[in-house]
Amino acid sequence: MSEVPTPGLATCCWMQFGGANGELAAAMQYSIQGLNCDDPDRKDMLMDIGTEELSHLEIVGTLARMHLKPIKKSRDSAEADPLIAIACEGGVGLFNSMGDAWTADYLKITGELDVDLRSNIAAEAQAKIVYEHLINLSDDPGTKDALQFLMTREITHMKAFTGALESLGKDPFSIGNIPPTPGLVDEYFNDSTGLGDEGETDARGPWNTGGKWKIVESPELEQGVEGRSGETIVKNHKPVSEETGKTRVKKSA
Amino acid sequence: MSEVPTPGLATCCWMQFGGANGELAAAMQYSIQGLNCDDPDRKDMLMDIGTEELSHLEIVGTLARMHLKPIKKSRDSAEADPLIAIACEGGVGLFNSMGDAWTADYLKITGELDVDLRSNIAAEAQAKIVYEHLINLSDDPGTKDALQFLMTREITHMKAFTGALESLGKDPFSIGNIPPTPGLVDEYFNDSTGLGDEGETDARGPWNTGGKWKIVESPELEQGVEGRSGETIVKNHKPVSEETGKTRVKKSA
Amino acid sequence: MSEVPTPGLATCCWMQFGGANGELAAAMQYSIQGLNCDDPDRKDMLMDIGTEELSHLEIVGTLARMHLKPIKKSRDSAEADPLIAIACEGGVGLFNSMGDAWTADYLKITGELDVDLRSNIAAEAQAKIVYEHLINLSDDPGTKDALQFLMTREITHMKAFTGALESLGKDPFSIGNIPPTPGLVDEYFNDSTGLGDEGETDARGPWNTGGKWKIVESPELEQGVEGRSGETIVKNHKPVSEETGKTRVKKSA
Amino acid sequence: MSEVPTPGLATCCWMQFGGANGELAAAMQYSIQGLNCDDPDRKDMLMDIGTEELSHLEIVGTLARMHLKPIKKSRDSAEADPLIAIACEGGVGLFNSMGDAWTADYLKITGELDVDLRSNIAAEAQAKIVYEHLINLSDDPGTKDALQFLMTREITHMKAFTGALESLGKDPFSIGNIPPTPGLVDEYFNDSTGLGDEGETDARGPWNTGGKWKIVESPELEQGVEGRSGETIVKNHKPVSEETGKTRVKKSA
Amino acid sequence: MSEVPTPGLATCCWMQFGGANGELAAAMQYSIQGLNCDDPDRKDMLMDIGTEELSHLEIVGTLARMHLKPIKKSRDSAEADPLIAIACEGGVGLFNSMGDAWTADYLKITGELDVDLRSNIAAEAQAKIVYEHLINLSDDPGTKDALQFLMTREITHMKAFTGALESLGKDPFSIGNIPPTPGLVDEYFNDSTGLGDEGETDARGPWNTGGKWKIVESPELEQGVEGRSGETIVKNHKPVSEETGKTRVKKSA
Amino acid sequence: MSEVPTPGLATCCWMQFGGANGELAAAMQYSIQGLNCDDPDRKDMLMDIGTEELSHLEIVGTLARMHLKPIKKSRDSAEADPLIAIACEGGVGLFNSMGDAWTADYLKITGELDVDLRSNIAAEAQAKIVYEHLINLSDDPGTKDALQFLMTREITHMKAFTGALESLGKDPFSIGNIPPTPGLVDEYFNDSTGLGDEGETDARGPWNTGGKWKIVESPELEQGVEGRSGETIVKNHKPVSEETGKTRVKKSA
Repeated sequence: MSEVPTPGLATCCWMQFGGANGELAAAMQYSIQGLNCDDPDRKDMLMDIGTEELSHLEIVGTLARMHLKPIKKSRDSAEADPLIAIACEGGVGLFNSMGDAWTADYLKITGELDVDLRSNIAAEAQAKIVYEHLINLSDDPGTKDALQFLMTREITHMKAFTGALESLGKDPFSIGNIPPTPGLVDEYFNDSTGLGDEGETDARGPWNTGGKWKIVESPELEQGVEGRSGETIVKNHKPVSEETGKTRVKKSA
Repeated sequence: MSEVPTPGLATCCWMQFGGANGELAAAMQYSIQGLNCDDPDRKDMLMDIGTEELSHLEIVGTLARMHLKPIKKSRDSAEADPLIAIACEGGVGLFNSMGDAWTADYLKITGELDVDLRSNIAAEAQAKIVYEHLINLSDDPGTKDALQFLMTREITHMKAFTGALESLGKDPFSIGNIPPTPGLVDEYFNDSTGLGDEGETDARGPWNTGGKWKIVESPELEQGVEGRSGETIVKNHKPVSEETGKTRVKKSA
Repeated sequence: MSEVPTPGLATCCWMQFGGANGELAAAMQYSIQGLNCDDPDRKDMLMDIGTEELSHLEIVGTLARMHLKPIKKSRDSAEADPLIAIACEGGVGLFNSMGDAWTADYLKITGELDVDLRSNIAAEAQAKIVYEHLINLSDDPGTKDALQFLMTREITHMKAFTGALESLGKDPFSIGNIPPTPGLVDEYFNDSTGLGDEGETDARGPWNTGGKWKIVESPELEQGVEGRSGETIVKNHKPVSEETGKTRVKKSA
Repeated sequence: MSEVPTPGLATCCWMQFGGANGELAAAMQYSIQGLNCDDPDRKDMLMDIGTEELSHLEIVGTLARMHLKPIKKSRDSAEADPLIAIACEGGVGLFNSMGDAWTADYLKITGELDVDLRSNIAAEAQAKIVYEHLINLSDDPGTKDALQFLMTREITHMKAFTGALESLGKDPFSIGNIPPTPGLVDEYFNDSTGLGDEGETDARGPWNTGGKWKIVESPELEQGVEGRSGETIVKNHKPVSEETGKTRVKKSA
Repeated sequence: MSEVPTPGLATCCWMQFGGANGELAAAMQYSIQGLNCDDPDRKDMLMDIGTEELSHLEIVGTLARMHLKPIKKSRDSAEADPLIAIACEGGVGLFNSMGDAWTADYLKITGELDVDLRSNIAAEAQAKIVYEHLINLSDDPGTKDALQFLMTREITHMKAFTGALESLGKDPFSIGNIPPTPGLVDEYFNDSTGLGDEGETDARGPWNTGGKWKIVESPELEQGVEGRSGETIVKNHKPVSEETGKTRVKKSA
Repeated sequence: MSEVPTPGLATCCWMQFGGANGELAAAMQYSIQGLNCDDPDRKDMLMDIGTEELSHLEIVGTLARMHLKPIKKSRDSAEADPLIAIACEGGVGLFNSMGDAWTADYLKITGELDVDLRSNIAAEAQAKIVYEHLINLSDDPGTKDALQFLMTREITHMKAFTGALESLGKDPFSIGNIPPTPGLVDEYFNDSTGLGDEGETDARGPWNTGGKWKIVESPELEQGVEGRSGETIVKNHKPVSEETGKTRVKKSA
């Protein structure tokens, strides 16, 4: 380790200790999904990876603690960083870099395996990016090595979750059992202004053109949810029509 | 609408009003990602969909309010559901079905466009499933229609976000700029017990077999992070080695 | 007291014990405003009322406890209300009626005396309404008397805070030191749709007509913040103009 | 814009983005009050102003983003401000200036229109003061202009809410339907010590003298809630009397 | 297992899964104390017990899941318990019995080993009591056995933590390094009223009589912190004296 | 007071104002325990000490306010500490040193008097340590005196709570009514690795040796909870056995 430990880096490491996409969040998200999972094979995978993330929590905590140790409980350091000096007394706590206590509100657990796997893929991508930032912030070779190890494992997990999702053999846009309404599902609502100098040019891309895509101009403005509600969606359902009919946004002339 | 509104359904609807994957969460997640986005075309898409989700928030709130109206401020209803009768006085509040106040801790925003798009795809899948449950709970045709509309739009957004992600042309496992460590990235750590009667059979699937996958037996147990750390990861970095070397899990004989 | 205590009423009483506008919130809001107040006379008043609210906290807690006592720690009561039976073991806790822990996020404290007094007037009105609901829920004369006492004192405090606010001799719309922009301050932006069958009729009232009021039709739609920003507000300030110019809402043709 | 953007100002701007009295809080408070409002005219006003606040959220976010852009993802900036560099990756997040996630606990929504309007008047005053501080912190003319615009609109909204409140024609101290107890409502309880050297001089002002005001010396001390409870408030209600009779504060000899 | 699983019991079990004194809280409290601990022997103990609590988390989650399984995703069950049916889709989540997300605010970690051990002893006693309630709520022999196992282990941990605390050889009232002020440390302040009919009898016990105890009558009332501050505590420190001198509580005549 | 007040010290003082183990936490914990307490003598003690802690809250707030006063609302101080300059406008707020709002999640209240007393003893030890740090951070004699007073009282309270706990005459390991399982209660599970160079040496001490202690080697690894569950704990209870039998940790060969 370089001769000068870096309390600031330790604080940043907390992002992966007690942060929204940190190791405890990952460990709990996958393990609890595993507890709720009726598919024994994928349950085994969720437990494998959840267990591995717990071991990462210990590594990250050890790294942070190592960089925190040189902090003296002096007035200077306390004023500079009460999070470390006073709240945690030079130790590690289950906080993120801003001192917010970890909360289970960070977790994405639904009980639908394919939905959960998508959340996990996204979570691993989030964690991978944070480790990349931490590597860039570090100049100690040993710390960089440890962070590279942890960052690599996130990609491993992305691959595993992706393999598990694909092995379910579901259409990527088939979620749950009730199919979406045909036609409506392919309408792209152009609700914001364009991007040109005058604001009149809207962007086009694979997200609203090609295939079955059909661009619908600002339905809230030109016909309102009202017209749509009244005639199509909540037909024969006057109370809804009466109330949702008044969108907040002014109809154009 | 059926003659008897259903306060219980209203409570459940709150999941999509003030819940972790509800409409406010979606609107804020996409709009703030849009504010941070330097790519003008995809920023336009994020703003389009964020704006649409805000209009959905209004629809869900109106639905919930409609089903809540018949609640008299009586002692019976207050005891049965203080959330509705006392806390919100028969109105809608920014809570989930359990009465927890909405929090921005629900949001997944990283500033990396491809990572954010993955989070959005997962978020839409989560919301789709909740709408499906609400449809199953409802027996009023008008309410069912409105929920079907909202559910359909979530699939539309999944498609749009997927199109935008693919249009970036990135390898699905290429996140950020620093590549993962070759070899290590393909190792599947078998950390939990098997699934057979004796606990010795582990699951195999596309998430740990085929391609470059190599299964590594419980590295925490058989060699410890210590061995790994000491020799490979945090080589020449004694302090980390000394501390992380002692994993919590007993080494087998 | 009537022979049958009412656990449900106890739960509702918690709204005034550990709720957002309950007695602890009032006591803390006024006492901390008092600690920060440099005006000795109004500081004395804030401390007087803050101290009184603390004594109310004790009364409300005692009332709730009295109605909770008959709850047996049985399976039935635990399943019916885990909040009371398990979490608080038949006692009182610092939660609201939905079981949410009290948080200082409920408090409105700014350090500007006139602003704080307005918050306090609003807070007393909120608390008065909740006591009114509790009285309506109760059929025990003694409980009703205690609640009437507490409700009355909220009106007393409204009067005191109003007297203190008026004694500052400030114009009701003069807040802080920087005056608002003339002209703009009297423009009412008509941003939502009207209320008629076709959505074209907008409401008129003392909040947008009479005096200096001037109604401006949907400025976001017809000229955009862009036009306004570009020309007036952030003139010579291209970066803001370029970005805020694109409002989310489609410009009308 | 001045040549040197100011990340610190950006952090402070977050107070109005994701803070307790920021633009999202305002937008949600008014819009949800509007959803719950049965009076169509004032509902229109709540929706108008709620919609305008949403557009302000976008302006504030854009301002913050503009000042954040120059932040390099360097070790220095990350150590100086992990909130910006690591948690939000140089972008905007739904946090306040201390990095606390936005929560609906900030909102004041009761379902009583006059009570809600009072909360809104107070909320606008709070927001006005924060904008004033931000203007004082800024030295960039364009930023100052944008903040002046936003600050002005808060006063506009104060006026509109005040007009709406007055148009209800209610007595300022008439809240809900149950009248306060005559006599008791005009008693000012002098619960804290005085302000002179010996602590014996108490403040007098329009909040406790004049009109019907009657000062009551420390009722908790001299007669206790007990005496009051036992004889007046919870008369014939022994259990309450027995318990609330013992206030925490020692009776004077 | 009995033939009829009991969703209500499952909800209660959550108290030990995601509750303030549940297994995750225990596991995290002890493990993080262990990470911060410089004493290798007691660190080993903290890690041993932290690891055991993690395995308990899995057992409790499995128990809860088992009792939840029979819940059909029907309208009835969703209305009866949205926590289980909608929020968690019949699975387990990291919530307590009232649906509050787990938060690290539950943890007590100071970095002083003896202080932490006291917190742990208290935490184990808290958890023991909750398991006892759960056993009383259960009538399924298998479930009772599992709960008895978990309850027993809490006593084991109490014993271990007590042994570790005693082995430090510190005086029970010697915390940290700075000794308390002699004399003052033995004064019991009698601040609340007595317990007799007239409120004049105060309780006496080993907590204020015997040994060096000296009862001081309501110092806030009879001499004020002022007198104390001005003369003793903050002597020569006028600003504090001037302000803290005015306690909120009226001085008796 | 020294000539230069110290805003940083003020921030640190907030730990005892609005922090997890601060004065409000103490006041609320003891007072609410007192409200729930059926033992009149110990209830009197809880109320005495709860009341005293409230007066300490006022002292700490006054101290913090005194050190904050010199903060000018300048851009420099706002950028340096938005918590003080913007959020609290140079005043005190109910936050901890990291700007987190106080929450009742900090409190430990169970309704079992002996358990509550243990929590209180631990809480006083925690608060004592924080005051010690604050004293070390301070160089103003008056401030040091006030902190010494407050610190001393925490020890006083520790003594009182200890006296009250001992006066209950309960065995230290007898909590509640259901006795732990004999034998199992004396087994120390050695779940983590040893501490020697090779990780094979485990610590021995009064927490796992002597008396009835019996060390059991890593039961999760060598026999699993499965064996234990299947045969002993949840015997004849197949569903639990089937699921909890698979612990996450690999069985050794």
